Amino acid sequence: MTRIEKGEMMRERWRHSFSEWYNEIIERAEILDVRYPVKGVYVWRPYGFKIRARVVEIIRRILDSTGHEEALFPLLIPEHEFAKEAKHIAGFEDEVYWVTHGGLEPLKVKLALRPTSETAMYPIFALWIRSHADMPLKIYQVVNTFRYETKHTRPLIRLREITTFKEAHTAHASAEEAERQVHEAIECYRRFFDTLGIPYIISRRPDWDRFPGAEYTIAFDTIFPDGRTLQIATVHNLGQNFARTFEITFENPQGEQEYAYQTCYGISDRVIAALLALHGDDSGLCLMPEVAPIQVVIVPIWFKGRKEMVDAEMEKLKDELSDFRVHVDARDLRPGAKYYDWELRGVPLRVELGPRDIERGEVTLVRRDTGERFSVPRSEVKERVGEALREIAANLKERAWREMESRVHEARSMEEIRSLVVERKGVVRTAWCGREECGKSMEDRADVDILGILDEEASGSCTGCSARAEKVVLMGRSY
Amino acid sequence: MTRIEKGEMMRERWRHSFSEWYNEIIERAEILDVRYPVKGVYVWRPYGFKIRARVVEIIRRILDSTGHEEALFPLLIPEHEFAKEAKHIAGFEDEVYWVTHGGLEPLKVKLALRPTSETAMYPIFALWIRSHADMPLKIYQVVNTFRYETKHTRPLIRLREITTFKEAHTAHASAEEAERQVHEAIECYRRFFDTLGIPYIISRRPDWDRFPGAEYTIAFDTIFPDGRTLQIATVHNLGQNFARTFEITFENPQGEQEYAYQTCYGISDRVIAALLALHGDDSGLCLMPEVAPIQVVIVPIWFKGRKEMVDAEMEKLKDELSDFRVHVDARDLRPGAKYYDWELRGVPLRVELGPRDIERGEVTLVRRDTGERFSVPRSEVKERVGEALREIAANLKERAWREMESRVHEARSMEEIRSLVVERKGVVRTAWCGREECGKSMEDRADVDILGILDEEASGSCTGCSARAEKVVLMGRSY
Repeated sequence: MTRIEKGEMMRERWRHSFSEWYNEIIERAEILDVRYPVKGVYVWRPYGFKIRARVVEIIRRILDSTGHEEALFPLLIPEHEFAKEAKHIAGFEDEVYWVTHGGLEPLKVKLALRPTSETAMYPIFALWIRSHADMPLKIYQVVNTFRYETKHTRPLIRLREITTFKEAHTAHASAEEAERQVHEAIECYRRFFDTLGIPYIISRRPDWDRFPGAEYTIAFDTIFPDGRTLQIATVHNLGQNFARTFEITFENPQGEQEYAYQTCYGISDRVIAALLALHGDDSGLCLMPEVAPIQVVIVPIWFKGRKEMVDAEMEKLKDELSDFRVHVDARDLRPGAKYYDWELRGVPLRVELGPRDIERGEVTLVRRDTGERFSVPRSEVKERVGEALREIAANLKERAWREMESRVHEARSMEEIRSLVVERKGVVRTAWCGREECGKSMEDRADVDILGILDEEASGSCTGCSARAEKVVLMGRSY
Repeated sequence: MTRIEKGEMMRERWRHSFSEWYNEIIERAEILDVRYPVKGVYVWRPYGFKIRARVVEIIRRILDSTGHEEALFPLLIPEHEFAKEAKHIAGFEDEVYWVTHGGLEPLKVKLALRPTSETAMYPIFALWIRSHADMPLKIYQVVNTFRYETKHTRPLIRLREITTFKEAHTAHASAEEAERQVHEAIECYRRFFDTLGIPYIISRRPDWDRFPGAEYTIAFDTIFPDGRTLQIATVHNLGQNFARTFEITFENPQGEQEYAYQTCYGISDRVIAALLALHGDDSGLCLMPEVAPIQVVIVPIWFKGRKEMVDAEMEKLKDELSDFRVHVDARDLRPGAKYYDWELRGVPLRVELGPRDIERGEVTLVRRDTGERFSVPRSEVKERVGEALREIAANLKERAWREMESRVHEARSMEEIRSLVVERKGVVRTAWCGREECGKSMEDRADVDILGILDEEASGSCTGCSARAEKVVLMGRSY
């Protein structure tokens, strides 16, 4: 069996036991500690935290470069503000945590822990916005938010404390500008997920599944190896709904008062869940070089009497590779034990250096993604390491896209929907008439959700009712 | 009046109306919005947030370079963990916020919003630490914490949501190692405050004022222009107190089980309060170049018919200064209005560029700290701007130290303590016998607090009781 065939086998095993793999890897690779004594909240360990920090840095860079400004709003939202927007409170009231006591005294006004920050931000937006010249206002923050989830919680996927909630909120002087902002947000998220090598499908959520208080919701979903979809980003056009509730008005160029047009869009820890889940195999994680805390691990191969020579050479090599995040593993362990550890933790590239390599003027590189092992001339090591990391990033991205696309099928009957999703663990595209009643009936009959409406022309007849198809929808089972 | 004399006058006016100045500048320089509808919590505006981000970056750099690792623990602490350490809970129970409901249901276990994270972290430390080889463990996090303050709240100084709580927690295999860690922490904070140009006095808090659960507490205080002291950092030696409560044990090299030795140390938003408060004048903020969102503002001086020439030159200048954080203010306003805005916001250096400067091959620089205005040859602009920023940083630091030291006086009688602190708005050093009873009586009689014990030899007799002096203490009034 070649190393690449072995790698493929590891991927196959990983796909088959994905759910256990995911739960195990989170702990064994020291991403989170799941033993915290409150359900649905977890501890970020230093190794996991470093990955998280790089992911946050990437989204900050993208948002800053497109004119967004970072701010920070309070966690605690007074009940009277939180309850102002009727649909919003209806959508969240079952899952809000309430602070009712300060010290030993009951509070006069109950305080919600933000599940999202519309109701914390918009009373302040109303103060900041006076005229059309104050817009566009494009604010974001990266914060912890809280949801009292009653469903089964799962690390990074379904949390009671969402530790990494990046939410952007914008206000505009016209509906057209808000619409353009929705497109800008989508482009930001495309760039973000492309950088992380996370494949996605963009769709418009059906009306019964939009964000509480929004006009419409655009979502990014990815598909996990077990065939379930994961919502990894949403973009909402809020129209003037919240502006009416929170009195966000501006003087337009004609001198009239008008309500602002708003959008908001967010991502969460789920991005990191996808990053870990989609690029792995049976040996552990495989991290995108861009976010890997260690990009290159150097493992010395010591032979009796040659240790000093190897160590001296290793130091030189480390200096030569200082453009990368390099770690030298000089622990007193067999090389095999070290390989095991770093494969588990997903270090994208391993450099092995032994007396034979030194004599030949070479070093040995081992790619984490494919398992390939090859020698490169010592004199070219810096270029070749950079090249290998770029190839790994490209391969991880390409592989993840290919695998995701292989899980999307066309379904032309209710039976096909059911069998492709439930038995073949896939996601389907199918035709729909566009009526809510029929959509919900399709969901019930197939026991599968309509995830969203694709931006495509429909043809033929609705899979649910045989009326003329108006839309193409994506159906599957989501996390 | 020279520009420097004028600058001194501005400082004088600022000192006299410091308290109003502080409240105003926070809002007018767009650091925080104080209109959030919950008492004691505030909104970080983008300009303030950028300053905060740089401050956090500096402390992260210092901690990372000394072997600390960043992690992230949950906000919610279950009541049974929070209440485990008796002194700790006694010290905090009046100011903890409690979450009692999830959705519409009461929770089975009440959850505290962390006021600090000992009780969130240490149950997990108990799982991480097994043997002496697992230590030292040096973990930190930057998080929001909560205190139900009943005293008068004040932006960045006394908060109900502390948005920028950097807390480090360490565990060690011996008391000596923990003691050394206390010193390392002190050195880290020295570097941090020196970088920010914030002067400090280090003292050991009297026993009745140590952190709840600690063996002893070392504090950094600074003195505000109104003579009140502000605690800006604390370092605690926890001994084995928390380790006993949370069962943090390790196998020592002799194979015996022992409790770990712990320290913890923290800083908060108060650092930013000090940064803003200590380097300012009647015209507004004066930011340390290291943390200024804009280090250099370029203001074009347009003359009729010469605007294009100036604009073209300004673009070139901006490119030449791209090593700095430069902003070009091309708004359609009088130069004076622009000066006013950027002085208010504390931009350390202004560059003025008009047709006359261009003809002479010069640019005009104006220092925010002193008001000095001078021309430099255009060909040297990059070096001279760098030099000016370094001089501004040095001057701000030196001036703040000088001013703080001028507020510290020797007091030899109770009367002197009272008059120096209460009337002359200073801080005093005085001799103390070391007995708690006498110390508390001194506090009562002078209506002034003992802040801490200085690391100095005492001589003569105790100012409170005339017994032999054992210690030199610092007394004053604190925020």
